[in-house]
Amino acid sequence: MTFEAPIKDMLFNIEHLSGWSEVNDLPPYGTLELEDVAAVLSELGRFCAEEIAPLNTPGDEVGSQFKDGKVIMPSGFEDAYTQFVDMGWQSLPHPEEYGGQSLPRVVGAAATEILNAANMSFALCPLLTDGAIEALLTVGSAETKDTYLTNLVSGKWTGTMNLTEPQAGSDLALLRSRADRQDDGSYQITGTKIFITYGEHDMSENTIHLVLARTADAPAGVKGISLFLVPKYMVNADGSLGDQNSVRCQSIEHKLGIKASPTAVLEFEGATGFLIGEENAGLSYMFKMMNAARYTVGLQGVAIGERATQAALAYAKERIQGRPVDGSSKDAVAIVNHPDVRRLLARMRAMTEGCRAMAAFTAGWQDLSLHGETPEVRAEATSIHEFLVPLVKGYCTEMGVETASNGVQIHGGMGFIEETGAAQHYRDARILPIYEGTTAIQANDLIGRKTLRDGGATALRMVEMIKQTEQDLSQGSSTARAISARLSKARTAFQSVVDYMLATGKQDINATFAGGVPYLMLAGNLISGWQLARSALVAEEALAAGDDPAFMAAKIASARFYAEHILPDTETQRDRVMEGAKSLLDFAL
Amino acid sequence: MTFEAPIKDMLFNIEHLSGWSEVNDLPPYGTLELEDVAAVLSELGRFCAEEIAPLNTPGDEVGSQFKDGKVIMPSGFEDAYTQFVDMGWQSLPHPEEYGGQSLPRVVGAAATEILNAANMSFALCPLLTDGAIEALLTVGSAETKDTYLTNLVSGKWTGTMNLTEPQAGSDLALLRSRADRQDDGSYQITGTKIFITYGEHDMSENTIHLVLARTADAPAGVKGISLFLVPKYMVNADGSLGDQNSVRCQSIEHKLGIKASPTAVLEFEGATGFLIGEENAGLSYMFKMMNAARYTVGLQGVAIGERATQAALAYAKERIQGRPVDGSSKDAVAIVNHPDVRRLLARMRAMTEGCRAMAAFTAGWQDLSLHGETPEVRAEATSIHEFLVPLVKGYCTEMGVETASNGVQIHGGMGFIEETGAAQHYRDARILPIYEGTTAIQANDLIGRKTLRDGGATALRMVEMIKQTEQDLSQGSSTARAISARLSKARTAFQSVVDYMLATGKQDINATFAGGVPYLMLAGNLISGWQLARSALVAEEALAAGDDPAFMAAKIASARFYAEHILPDTETQRDRVMEGAKSLLDFAL
Repeated sequence: MTFEAPIKDMLFNIEHLSGWSEVNDLPPYGTLELEDVAAVLSELGRFCAEEIAPLNTPGDEVGSQFKDGKVIMPSGFEDAYTQFVDMGWQSLPHPEEYGGQSLPRVVGAAATEILNAANMSFALCPLLTDGAIEALLTVGSAETKDTYLTNLVSGKWTGTMNLTEPQAGSDLALLRSRADRQDDGSYQITGTKIFITYGEHDMSENTIHLVLARTADAPAGVKGISLFLVPKYMVNADGSLGDQNSVRCQSIEHKLGIKASPTAVLEFEGATGFLIGEENAGLSYMFKMMNAARYTVGLQGVAIGERATQAALAYAKERIQGRPVDGSSKDAVAIVNHPDVRRLLARMRAMTEGCRAMAAFTAGWQDLSLHGETPEVRAEATSIHEFLVPLVKGYCTEMGVETASNGVQIHGGMGFIEETGAAQHYRDARILPIYEGTTAIQANDLIGRKTLRDGGATALRMVEMIKQTEQDLSQGSSTARAISARLSKARTAFQSVVDYMLATGKQDINATFAGGVPYLMLAGNLISGWQLARSALVAEEALAAGDDPAFMAAKIASARFYAEHILPDTETQRDRVMEGAKSLLDFAL
Repeated sequence: MTFEAPIKDMLFNIEHLSGWSEVNDLPPYGTLELEDVAAVLSELGRFCAEEIAPLNTPGDEVGSQFKDGKVIMPSGFEDAYTQFVDMGWQSLPHPEEYGGQSLPRVVGAAATEILNAANMSFALCPLLTDGAIEALLTVGSAETKDTYLTNLVSGKWTGTMNLTEPQAGSDLALLRSRADRQDDGSYQITGTKIFITYGEHDMSENTIHLVLARTADAPAGVKGISLFLVPKYMVNADGSLGDQNSVRCQSIEHKLGIKASPTAVLEFEGATGFLIGEENAGLSYMFKMMNAARYTVGLQGVAIGERATQAALAYAKERIQGRPVDGSSKDAVAIVNHPDVRRLLARMRAMTEGCRAMAAFTAGWQDLSLHGETPEVRAEATSIHEFLVPLVKGYCTEMGVETASNGVQIHGGMGFIEETGAAQHYRDARILPIYEGTTAIQANDLIGRKTLRDGGATALRMVEMIKQTEQDLSQGSSTARAISARLSKARTAFQSVVDYMLATGKQDINATFAGGVPYLMLAGNLISGWQLARSALVAEEALAAGDDPAFMAAKIASARFYAEHILPDTETQRDRVMEGAKSLLDFAL
């Protein structure tokens, strides 16, 4: 099964949904034209289709292996990674100062989706490096940046995030890893970290671990966590590599999916570490890094949805089975003609496009939040971007799991046999609603930091924007009006739930959080459906102008299908939140 | 993780939902008391917990292996199977005439769930044998019955169903396997069959394959399919085993789940077969067998839901992580205290109980359909039972997949690591909405044979019964009234959809089938929620009488949670069916 990057849909989103005209003029981006973006993404798409995607199935079959303290990557991964670095793909969104290409986030997001669709296990390595770069850019000292960033930005060195310990997963207050200050200003790091993605491997010259630990005199709980940089190999003053640090890979996990990507247990045995930023402020730095990583994991949900949809569609067009229900043929036909196979495929495609559109929209706000012209613009963009991140993470990953599962279903019995690849997507996707914070953790973030903290102001800002789209649609075709009506119902449901959250947040916090995930799913569903509704507006205009009719008609079809088959779930979610708290909280377990 | 059979819930369903008082008086059942049922199920529960459940994880780890044309079962399976046979568990629901125990279906269903919850891979072997017994009882000649049934009923011999060929899965019209009539009245069977569950193994002395094939002069399509019995070892006149037949296992599949259960490719190379029933009538016989098997696969959905729920609840009570959102503790608490973990667990439990209740209700109608006193009673029971079978198969299996997935989610990162077992349930469950007819095939059955054929009469019969429950509830407590209100909305949605199906069935059959799976999910949801609503009525009375308060309160809690969190989906499904056909059928793929 070949993979083709959905470049056209991505460019449509960048141009029409992400605020490209505003974003592209911003320093440091400046001069990039859409044609350049198309060229970059197409070249990445070609590289991924030819070099990275073919490693996905064999990588799953053998997995990464652990032997004598070392991780052996599946055949082909090391070569592919070298090519990836040589072609400069790691550096796309990073600053020119460190050798990056300073592409806007909206472009970086598309690139990340392509790489992940080709091979999620492979893509996790650059993903973690991106997170490390983000953290060092934000809080690293000038010296740290000079020492590490250029090699991370190029991908010559890779990065990891070391948060989890056996007793501390979602709850970082329970962290025990210790950092002992040394006379030379460095620290000795001691402790066991688990679930460390690409914590050990042989694809890069060095690995830069970012590690959360406590100093001896740190306060208890999350206020006593500091962030340290622990290189696998020490870096000499001249930039060359020195001795191996005291970090040992104890084992790797035997996982349900993403088997080619090594998930390491790392033992820090008095390893030399360097403080990043201030002592005891590690959690807030880690949140920076996690916000980026969470958004990217959301993109992984889109990516796996795209890959599963392409595979299922190809199979459905090939597999001959059953006569049409309307008697239009006496012979068996390809299953893509059967109504329920169409329903599943339409659902997979509309959901994937909706999630991709929400992710592009979110990336646009991030670009504005970073480089908007005025502090006011940046502040507003920041609050909107931060509101959207848990939705991208929570909704797109849950949808990725559903889409991968529907992909298995379309393959029928063959979907259950590993050889077709559909089962791998189902297994790989399952980690997405878990790592970088479960869906419930995202919902807590959405409620606490993103809704209650500003008294619902950002949520209401979304409502106003959505109303505008409804109004624009209501002056369009009958299809546009049908979409508008559904969008309006969903937006009303959202408003009710936000009001409910604000009210219960003051009186009955258990009831608030009991509705957390339904609220998140409602909001993610609404924002995705809204982006497709905006797409339909653009597409109707383009159609009227005779512009790319097949593609534009498909955008409208996705928007309408989404509006009628997926958006209605928002109303059920509203009922769950507003009427379901008591039956949930009273349930004896 | 230990497994405990949910005997109490099963007995409640048998006593209060399945029409036990009517069923139990019927010949051939007669004299069984509920205490006897409790004793049988408890003993089976003990045996499964001690002997069968412990083989589930190791069986998954090694899988069944193929070597030199033979299948090697995982260690322990053969011994366990021998015990299973020696204790008489295979024979529970089968006629005394062939050594069975003639227990009612409502009891057999509970037993099947227990065995499958303990170890789905193991349970598939008896499940297929049950299907073969069913077919031979229905259409086997006296001689065939005498030769094969006693050893099948005891489990000494096992059975298989051979339908699928590489080009013929859901579409049996495409079957190519050939049957050549011999002078002695037997046939030579030639062809390749795939996906044959327990098609080859070493747990029993003989395997009786039931095989669909075409005679040389058979009409094309499904009207030219005949059913043959092909023993692995020929049976001599005195009942002893003779030569090996010409059936060869070519390979077994490398599957996503149920790995201990061998899924064979069987090559029939002029194998000796015996016609069952009439030539060219094989499909209708196979449907008999499939109806039984479909119902049982629905029970597998309940079973995996139960197992996943028990595992997740145990983990959630053990895993310490995070402080309560209401600030009631400064220390981290078990995650079972967090609202969203409660939501997931309540959902898992309510869904599993709802599906179990629907299955018990269905089994009661089957008992009546088989042994009801008058032809009228049997006819009505048959139509209701047959209406319910696709719901049990379709809804309970989709819910099994969701529940297993939620089980992974509750385990967090540990859920993605194979060692915890949560991932195995997620993998195992995924076959359920596929084999014995995908959910779409069930929906086709529900629409065509079960709704349109009788002009909606059976569906309306369900509506009348549900209305009665609504009325009974509306005279009860505030909780009962709340459940009644939700049930009423769901039942109204169902009625609208049935009307829509009847109307479009005459004018626009593509639109009818476009809504098939949403209709099935709506109906399955409604019937399950209705059974829990009936349970709440019983439980409120019992509570008032001071009878088993904790258990009865839990039944009411499940009913209310189901009504407020799951039943509302029926309204969204109605919208999909009634307003979503056009956007689906127009969607270009």
